[in-house]
Amino acid sequence: MNLDLMRELSVSTDSKIVLLVLDGLGGLPMDPFGRTELEAANTPNLDALAARSDLGLSRPVAAGVSPGSGPGHLALFGYDPLKYIVGRGVLSALGIGFELGENDLAARINFATKDESGKISDRRAGRITTSNAAKLVDLLNENVELDGAEVFVTHEKEHRAVVVFRAEGLSDALSDSDPQRVGLDPLPVEPTSDDPGAEKSADLANAFIGEANRILVDHHPANTVLLRGFGMHPALPKFDEIYELRAAAIAGYPMYKGLARLAGMEVLQEGEGIAGEFETLRENWGSHDFFFVHVKPPDAAGEDGDFERKSAVIEEVDALLPDLLDLGPDALAVTGDHATPAKMKSHSWHGVPFLLSSEYTLPTAESFGERACAGGSLSVFPAEEIMGLLMGHALKLNRYGA
Amino acid sequence: MNLDLMRELSVSTDSKIVLLVLDGLGGLPMDPFGRTELEAANTPNLDALAARSDLGLSRPVAAGVSPGSGPGHLALFGYDPLKYIVGRGVLSALGIGFELGENDLAARINFATKDESGKISDRRAGRITTSNAAKLVDLLNENVELDGAEVFVTHEKEHRAVVVFRAEGLSDALSDSDPQRVGLDPLPVEPTSDDPGAEKSADLANAFIGEANRILVDHHPANTVLLRGFGMHPALPKFDEIYELRAAAIAGYPMYKGLARLAGMEVLQEGEGIAGEFETLRENWGSHDFFFVHVKPPDAAGEDGDFERKSAVIEEVDALLPDLLDLGPDALAVTGDHATPAKMKSHSWHGVPFLLSSEYTLPTAESFGERACAGGSLSVFPAEEIMGLLMGHALKLNRYGA
Repeated sequence: MNLDLMRELSVSTDSKIVLLVLDGLGGLPMDPFGRTELEAANTPNLDALAARSDLGLSRPVAAGVSPGSGPGHLALFGYDPLKYIVGRGVLSALGIGFELGENDLAARINFATKDESGKISDRRAGRITTSNAAKLVDLLNENVELDGAEVFVTHEKEHRAVVVFRAEGLSDALSDSDPQRVGLDPLPVEPTSDDPGAEKSADLANAFIGEANRILVDHHPANTVLLRGFGMHPALPKFDEIYELRAAAIAGYPMYKGLARLAGMEVLQEGEGIAGEFETLRENWGSHDFFFVHVKPPDAAGEDGDFERKSAVIEEVDALLPDLLDLGPDALAVTGDHATPAKMKSHSWHGVPFLLSSEYTLPTAESFGERACAGGSLSVFPAEEIMGLLMGHALKLNRYGA
Repeated sequence: MNLDLMRELSVSTDSKIVLLVLDGLGGLPMDPFGRTELEAANTPNLDALAARSDLGLSRPVAAGVSPGSGPGHLALFGYDPLKYIVGRGVLSALGIGFELGENDLAARINFATKDESGKISDRRAGRITTSNAAKLVDLLNENVELDGAEVFVTHEKEHRAVVVFRAEGLSDALSDSDPQRVGLDPLPVEPTSDDPGAEKSADLANAFIGEANRILVDHHPANTVLLRGFGMHPALPKFDEIYELRAAAIAGYPMYKGLARLAGMEVLQEGEGIAGEFETLRENWGSHDFFFVHVKPPDAAGEDGDFERKSAVIEEVDALLPDLLDLGPDALAVTGDHATPAKMKSHSWHGVPFLLSSEYTLPTAESFGERACAGGSLSVFPAEEIMGLLMGHALKLNRYGA
């Protein structure tokens, strides 16, 4: 998306946009002659909406490339996912609800085991239990002392945690300490570029590892930590500045709330489940003009390889759709951040069904599904263009040129 | 294609990719209500495959732009054909099987006639016969002496030959000596940029022309040579480095072997005809994980304006397809490098039918043809993206981002 063009043309109006993201919506037939999860689902409301909508297949990143959740959502929000990078450590921090600031450097931690010679003998500390690891995280938070930076350690699950360093002038141009294989010495964290601050950041990270070694010495098998995926809060231009939108996010999982916050959206407190999210939308309808609503279960069902359940959760959204339509959004997109075909049990590169409903559409089909979308008036197009389409359909873009 | 992205994500696996190129596959109906060569061909095997495949129309270079064989294949191999340029001299050298090295500067030669005043009176030396020209080529190879460079002259056909200069530090930033019209003096070869080496290369080329004039003085009408299309071996990143592929090429014509070699493919010794190529594929199935198979006859039939013959050679490929499918490729593309509609008797800019078969497809049609492809799940897309699609479908790309 050309964000400068959006900045130039965007105007604030009373019209309202909803971007409804069914995570991992795109699917595949289990055998070549069958139907996809969405095609097989009984979705009378989505089908009726599709019959009044523009349809297309959106491509998140590039041909053949399966996106993670970060790039998938950045593209939906109009950012070039190859230009705006959200590091693993940042996503992990967002995923546990840590509110990353602009001066924060995040990395993933693995609790690990080192033997008497100092070599790593287990990169996951015997898959230490969540409750045991949580105690070690407390120990680190209470005892680590670093000169010149605050440190926050937050537990994820089992052997995984996140560390955030907070200081002026840090950099994420750093190598991992994880040697990736057992039987090797842990690596020193080193600057990977001439970035100002990389040297200082490497020193901080190495000092942290030293402190952790001191504190954990008697806690075999979790007697050391490995650090990887260093990332800084990415400096994304914000929705109000690009699009003149007062944007809100409704999402049940911390990572998506965090991604939305990076884009400058206000995160609304969501209710229980999908119905609760739709209720939150209704309650806040007057206060914002853009709503990102994130529905996680289709992706989870796809990752589990559960074709039926994925169809079923799509049907659940379908049943709630009339409530959303009653609000009268001026432009409503229903799509996913990527495909998660049950057949593949993973994210994939395939085109994602995309539907855009407004007063100004060119309908081409009677149902919402991958093949109906492939033949739609939007054809196959980059997901990065979705924000432009929504802004246009909501009449929030001035004409370009005379 | 973003080659850096491919480098970042590519992994070596046991899966196997076949890129089957039917040269000039794309066609047109002879009248607007008719069928194309491919649509008219009786292709039960390709149709059955299409019914299990992703379909689309690939665009080689740009809207309305008819590609030569060089850019057509570079795009198929994932290179931006507007960025990676293969000079005419280089293509000619590849076309006659000359194994160009990294220090080689190639140019096309026309034997020509100059009159007593030194002006060019015939740019093709009376279309000198192939056998006569071959003798002059021998004469040049035996007698030309240049300081500071080796010189290789190789005959093509009739008045056409190729000269290759081999020395350190040459450059192809050179103007042609061919004045393009009769009645004019031949032009001195001149540097067209500040490229280091361009001056030296121009001196070499002009010295070669002087030598040729001396040697050919009594061989009217072929008493001089015109040089054009200077090109160096292009520094293409190689398939193993970009994609981690052990790539092989099976092609009957030297130019396509040469193009494949530029991309780092190993050229396999092909058998006789299309069946022989497929046999070579079978024999070498175990030793590589990517196979480029080039089938020339559809292009030749199109160039001849022979609609029926073009359909017939497509049928010949169709009959051999089961042998290929028996090998069990994990990802198989069937496409062309460009269209050569019999109606136009030339390469054209039209979309090229593209079929991709794998376990992970979204089929949309029951047959393989231009119009079935236009409505496919890939829609119209740049040929440059084909390698990404093949890598994705063969599960040889890691996920992008967390």
